[in-house]
Amino acid sequence: MTDATSTQIQLAARPVGWPTHDDFRVATVTYGAPQAGEVRVRNEFVSVDPYMRGRMNDTRSYVAPYALGETITGGAVGRVVASASDDLPVGTVVLHQHGWSDVVQADAATFRAIPEIPGVPLSLNLHILGMTGLTAYVGLTAIAHLKPGDTVFVSGAAGAVGTAVGQIAKRLGAGRVIGSAGTPEKVALLTEKYGYDAAFNYKSGDVRTLLAEAAPEGIDVFFDNVGGDHLEAALDAFNDGGRAALCGAITGYNTTERTPGPDNMSNMITRALTMQGFTLAAYLHLAPEFQQKMSGWFAEGGIVYDETIVDGIENTVDAFLSMMRGANTGKMLVRI
Amino acid sequence: MTDATSTQIQLAARPVGWPTHDDFRVATVTYGAPQAGEVRVRNEFVSVDPYMRGRMNDTRSYVAPYALGETITGGAVGRVVASASDDLPVGTVVLHQHGWSDVVQADAATFRAIPEIPGVPLSLNLHILGMTGLTAYVGLTAIAHLKPGDTVFVSGAAGAVGTAVGQIAKRLGAGRVIGSAGTPEKVALLTEKYGYDAAFNYKSGDVRTLLAEAAPEGIDVFFDNVGGDHLEAALDAFNDGGRAALCGAITGYNTTERTPGPDNMSNMITRALTMQGFTLAAYLHLAPEFQQKMSGWFAEGGIVYDETIVDGIENTVDAFLSMMRGANTGKMLVRI
Repeated sequence: MTDATSTQIQLAARPVGWPTHDDFRVATVTYGAPQAGEVRVRNEFVSVDPYMRGRMNDTRSYVAPYALGETITGGAVGRVVASASDDLPVGTVVLHQHGWSDVVQADAATFRAIPEIPGVPLSLNLHILGMTGLTAYVGLTAIAHLKPGDTVFVSGAAGAVGTAVGQIAKRLGAGRVIGSAGTPEKVALLTEKYGYDAAFNYKSGDVRTLLAEAAPEGIDVFFDNVGGDHLEAALDAFNDGGRAALCGAITGYNTTERTPGPDNMSNMITRALTMQGFTLAAYLHLAPEFQQKMSGWFAEGGIVYDETIVDGIENTVDAFLSMMRGANTGKMLVRI
Repeated sequence: MTDATSTQIQLAARPVGWPTHDDFRVATVTYGAPQAGEVRVRNEFVSVDPYMRGRMNDTRSYVAPYALGETITGGAVGRVVASASDDLPVGTVVLHQHGWSDVVQADAATFRAIPEIPGVPLSLNLHILGMTGLTAYVGLTAIAHLKPGDTVFVSGAAGAVGTAVGQIAKRLGAGRVIGSAGTPEKVALLTEKYGYDAAFNYKSGDVRTLLAEAAPEGIDVFFDNVGGDHLEAALDAFNDGGRAALCGAITGYNTTERTPGPDNMSNMITRALTMQGFTLAAYLHLAPEFQQKMSGWFAEGGIVYDETIVDGIENTVDAFLSMMRGANTGKMLVRI
C-alpha cells in the first residue's frame, strides 16, 4: 500500500463572534501504510453543523471544546480504500466522526460500517437517516412528548433538522405544523414540499405577531432551533401544558455579549409549561427505534429532503460559514 | 337560628403594579338562617398567598381572575356554628376556599371536614399540612424529580413554601440544601431552624455570585419562588441534567412592564436542563401520598414552621401587602 496525503481543516484560533477564515488553517497530513487494525477511508461527504460553532469556544458544554491546532471532528461518510483490518475490507461504506478531511486513516473501531442501499445516496446517513433525523425524532418524542392532534411550531424549519421535524411530526400524528424560515423561498418550500400547514418569514415582521397569526389557536409543542425572539414568541403562543424542546439557539452562537432571555417567563408558571434542552448524546438508545420507523416511512415514499452541496474539502469553512448565515436549504454538506 | 353579619374583603379595582388599600373594600353581608343543605362557618384562620396577586389581574392564567366587586376567595379554616346539613354538624372543623371573611354561609358541599388533632393547631391545615406542604412536595417529586444526594437550591426559602421545601427535600434524601432570603434574620433561621445547609441574603450582593459561593459544586434541583435574578443565577449554577421547578416568581408580580428573562438561556441546551412551571391543580391526586408521608414526618418530630399572624379580618389587606413585601417568616395568616 502506498502513502496517502490528506487535506484537513484545523482550528487555528478560537473565533470571537462570527468565525472568519483566519480562525482555521489547512493542514496536509501524510499517512503511511495502515498498521494492523487500521483502515484508510476516502470521504465522500463531510458534514458541517450548527453545534460545531459551540465547540469552537472554550466553554463548558455537553461536548468538549475543539482543541486548537487539531482537525475539526464531526460526521462524515466514506469508503475504505486501504485496510489492515478484517472487520472493514476495502470497499466498505463507513460512517465516522473524524470530521473535516478528504482522507482519514485510523483504528477500524472508530468507523461504523453502514449498508449501501440502492437508490439511497450515502449523504443521507449524515442527515435524514442519521443524527439529524434522530435529533428531530428525539426532540418530538422523548423531550416534547408529542401527542396526536398537537399543534407544533418549528423555528428554523427549513434547515436540516427543521425539515425532518415537520415530516416526522406529521407521521407521529401532529395536527397543525407551523414553521419559520428566513427567506420567502424557504417559506414556500416548507408548505409546498415539506408538509408544513403554515409558514412565515421571520425577517418580515415581529415573530410574536407572525406566530400568533399562524397559530390562532395556540401551540402545544415548540421545537426550537433558533432561540431568542422565537422562544419568546412561543412562550406567548403556548396553550396550557405546552412543551418546548430546545435543540439549538443559532441566534446566540456568534454573539459575544449576554443577551436577555424571554420577557414572558412568567407564562411558564401560569400555563404550566415545560422547557427542556437536549442533545443527542443521552438519547442514542433511541437510534434503533428511530431507524426502524424512518426506514418504514422512507419505504412508503414521501420523505423528502434538500441538500446544499459545496464541492471540495478546501471549501469546508465556506460551507460552514454560509450554513451559519442560513444560506442552505436542508442539509449543508461538503462533497469530496 | 339568628341572622349573622359577615365582614368580607372584596376586590374594588384591579391593581396596577403594587396593590393599595384603594383596590379593596370592606363589605358587610347579612345571612339569614341556613337553608336546607347549608352551613354557617366562623373562620379561625384565613390565608393570604402570593398567587392571589395574579388573580387580581384580568389576564389568562391557570385560575380565573377574581371578579370585581366580589369577595376574595382562598383558603380558610373554621368551625361550623350553624347547620342545616346532616353532613356537617355544629362544631365540625372545616377547610374551605370561601376566602377573606370572618363568617361565611354556603352549601355544605363547599366545605371539607378535617380532623382536629390534639396539639396540632388548625392553622397548619393552611400551610405545612395543607396546600403549601403539598406544593413543596409536588415541586420536589413530580416536577423536579429529586434524587438522593441532589444539591437543591430554594429561592425565597424563608417563606411558607420555602421552609417546607427545605425540610421535605432533606427527608426525601437531598444532599446539600441551599436557600436564599431577604434579611439576615431569615437567613439565620434557614440554617438554624429549617435544616438548610447554607443560606444567603439575596439583598447583600449579586445573586449569581452568592449562589456560586454557596454551591461550589453546582446545583441539581432549583425550586423557584422568586424568578428574575434567582432563575438566572440557578441557570449558571446548574450541573448537567439540572431540573427547575418554577413555583412562583414574586419579583414580577407587581411590575407593570415586561422584564427580560435570564441572559443565559443557552445553558438549557448545553447542560441539558429542564424547567417546568407548575400549579397544584393538576397534582391534587398526590395529596393522599403527601398527607401520609407528612403525617409520618410530623409524628417523628422535627418538622418545624413559623407563622406570622395578623389579627382581625379588617387587617387582611395589610397582611396580604406585607406578605408581598416579604415581611413574613413562614406562613402569613389572618386570625379571626
